[in-house]
Amino acid sequence: MNTNTIYLDNAATTPIAPSVKEAMIKAMEVFGNPSSTHGYGRESRILIEQTRKKIAKELNCEPGEIFFTSGGTEADNLAIQSSVRDLGVERIITLPTEHHAVVYPAEHLRDRFGVELVFLKVNEFGDIDLNELEALLTSSSKKTLVSVMHGNNEIGNLMDIDAIGDICKTHEALFHSDTVQTIGHFKIDLAVTKIDFITCSAHKFNGPKGVGFLFARGGVKIHPQNFGGGQERNMRSGTENIIGIAGLGAAFELVCSDREEEETRLNGFKQDLIEGIRKVRSDAMFNGRSADIGKSLYTVLSVALPQDGKNDMLLFQFDMKGIAISGGSACNSGAQKGSHVIESIRPDVPTQNLRISTGRYTTTAEIQSFLEAFAELTQQ
Amino acid sequence: MNTNTIYLDNAATTPIAPSVKEAMIKAMEVFGNPSSTHGYGRESRILIEQTRKKIAKELNCEPGEIFFTSGGTEADNLAIQSSVRDLGVERIITLPTEHHAVVYPAEHLRDRFGVELVFLKVNEFGDIDLNELEALLTSSSKKTLVSVMHGNNEIGNLMDIDAIGDICKTHEALFHSDTVQTIGHFKIDLAVTKIDFITCSAHKFNGPKGVGFLFARGGVKIHPQNFGGGQERNMRSGTENIIGIAGLGAAFELVCSDREEEETRLNGFKQDLIEGIRKVRSDAMFNGRSADIGKSLYTVLSVALPQDGKNDMLLFQFDMKGIAISGGSACNSGAQKGSHVIESIRPDVPTQNLRISTGRYTTTAEIQSFLEAFAELTQQ
Ligand SMILES: Cc1ncc(COP(=O)(O)O)c(C=O)c1O
Ligand SMILES: Cc1ncc(COP(=O)(O)O)c(C=O)c1O
Repeated sequence: MNTNTIYLDNAATTPIAPSVKEAMIKAMEVFGNPSSTHGYGRESRILIEQTRKKIAKELNCEPGEIFFTSGGTEADNLAIQSSVRDLGVERIITLPTEHHAVVYPAEHLRDRFGVELVFLKVNEFGDIDLNELEALLTSSSKKTLVSVMHGNNEIGNLMDIDAIGDICKTHEALFHSDTVQTIGHFKIDLAVTKIDFITCSAHKFNGPKGVGFLFARGGVKIHPQNFGGGQERNMRSGTENIIGIAGLGAAFELVCSDREEEETRLNGFKQDLIEGIRKVRSDAMFNGRSADIGKSLYTVLSVALPQDGKNDMLLFQFDMKGIAISGGSACNSGAQKGSHVIESIRPDVPTQNLRISTGRYTTTAEIQSFLEAFAELTQQ
Repeated sequence: MNTNTIYLDNAATTPIAPSVKEAMIKAMEVFGNPSSTHGYGRESRILIEQTRKKIAKELNCEPGEIFFTSGGTEADNLAIQSSVRDLGVERIITLPTEHHAVVYPAEHLRDRFGVELVFLKVNEFGDIDLNELEALLTSSSKKTLVSVMHGNNEIGNLMDIDAIGDICKTHEALFHSDTVQTIGHFKIDLAVTKIDFITCSAHKFNGPKGVGFLFARGGVKIHPQNFGGGQERNMRSGTENIIGIAGLGAAFELVCSDREEEETRLNGFKQDLIEGIRKVRSDAMFNGRSADIGKSLYTVLSVALPQDGKNDMLLFQFDMKGIAISGGSACNSGAQKGSHVIESIRPDVPTQNLRISTGRYTTTAEIQSFLEAFAELTQQ
């Protein structure tokens, strides 16, 4: 029933890698309850703790700072909601271009618990002004959480989390970054970057959906949202998703193993896409920094065409041709609903947006096929 | 490294069934983001919704009343915490013998939000008095949530959820039951039982860990704990655990397919165990109703031996013989820490407790091996 053959929506999610599949199938035999102390239980416990160790080693943090969750959304919520509930945060500074897994909990905390919520200004390129952040942090002594994503899932912008971390540190603000689009794909060294919380979702790098983790810096003590058996050092109760954790571990290993090669290869595709698109449509724009190689996710290119009354079915037309791309994030990919991210950076000029996102299994031939279809569907 | 060969801890968790494994491997190819509207996305959406429909049909409820979660703990917490946050509940009536996934969120709501928390009395058999419940509900007009589990994971007691549902309905109390140990294993007809919330965890019936669901009766509107993409009809944000949901669906189908045969077969094992244990140790007691066939989970037998200063390493000795059993729930199986359940029903007589729990793959030979080991280790 799925008639698509070309998948260019890797920012929404990615296919399972063979090594991940293998690790998950193997983990299906490891079935004891990790809380049980008999042999079956110990075997499961070891699998989980070895995965945690492997991840911690790569990120240069302590295994005890990694908490497995049911994905990126839970990890973001845990960091943000707990900061208010448990760490005395009275103000949240974030961006209007954040993922809903950040914006919505922040708005909930404002509406329900009176937390002050400040959105930094973003310009037409999706950039922020670090001086504004610094001024805000100087202006108030309220305990603050700064939440700025590392790589934007719609427009691809990369943020300088090292610089933001330094500013937060100076002003004793907590710093959370939604790293769901970058973790694994980019090197993050937690011994260097001054950050309190980062988040991960395995399905963004060829792992399974429904599993991820929160890194919470050692000193930071947060409390569970769900109470029960006291798993994950009492921070997240519930029997562990062993098969998912095994898949996450294998996927993380894979994405870290060849990230420089993949960066080069996929930035090559991005260059081809930019040139190919410009050739067909000289009026095509690129949203945010997505066409600035080095300043954006190498996986994401976001294209904007002026609305002309004919191209509002474009995503659907690509779909009919067997090509899967999206309009914005997955939440509204295909849907003709506007993207809150693009609306934040360019509120006045409605455009038809196409997000093309590449991944491990993207081939040169697929990029060519996309460009041919693009010409056919949009040539004027 | 796991040297166990006989697994009698199925109340803690169960091995993956072959049909579940197959369904999960198949689902690894279905990778689109269910929120994407292109072909890959639609394929994933269909898999999830077909699973939801299948479950709803079996339980005789609407598909829209089933919300997939990361397991039983999350489902219990969602029901209990949302009742207070969103449904105006000011009082919770529950049992001291509930799982920690019920007791702990209830205590949290008492300690943090001033909710009145009442524990019903349980007698030495783990029974409750429905007159006490009725009197409590009559005595106050506070909006109340009653939370009584269907089958106790440690002592096996089955509660009459139909009778409790009728009482709750009469008094306009909300009724939640932790059905994690019974769902699938016993027929539940939601068109008959007057209940607002029930919960499920796939790993209790040969499905994967880290996935389950909450049934929330149609009229009941609860709000999310995690905010984001608005998945699960805006009640639980986060990209769906497709592989886990596929596994849950296959496991649910399997457990429902032969439950009467399994009930008969495993009750036969229970009878053999009771007789075999009594033959070796005439002073053996059985906790709660676990030895009352028909009044208890057919999967659980909880044995109590008088403490004699020698048997406190008994679980460890079984483990060394390759037999996996537990002391109480998984949270403290093997550990010599007391069980809060057994302490609630028999606070004065410390005993050495063994929970033997059978499942789909338990064989007659394993029951015999257990009894031989039991004789060897405990004969006086
Ligand atoms: C009665 C009961 N409730 C809740 C749970 C928790 O479910 P999960 O293991 O999916 O977190 C369990 C099992 O661990 C249980 O036995
Ligand atoms: C930037 C960003 N944050 C958070 C999420 C949510 O993670 P998950 O899909 O695991 O819920 C996503 C992806 O959906 C994302 O792209």
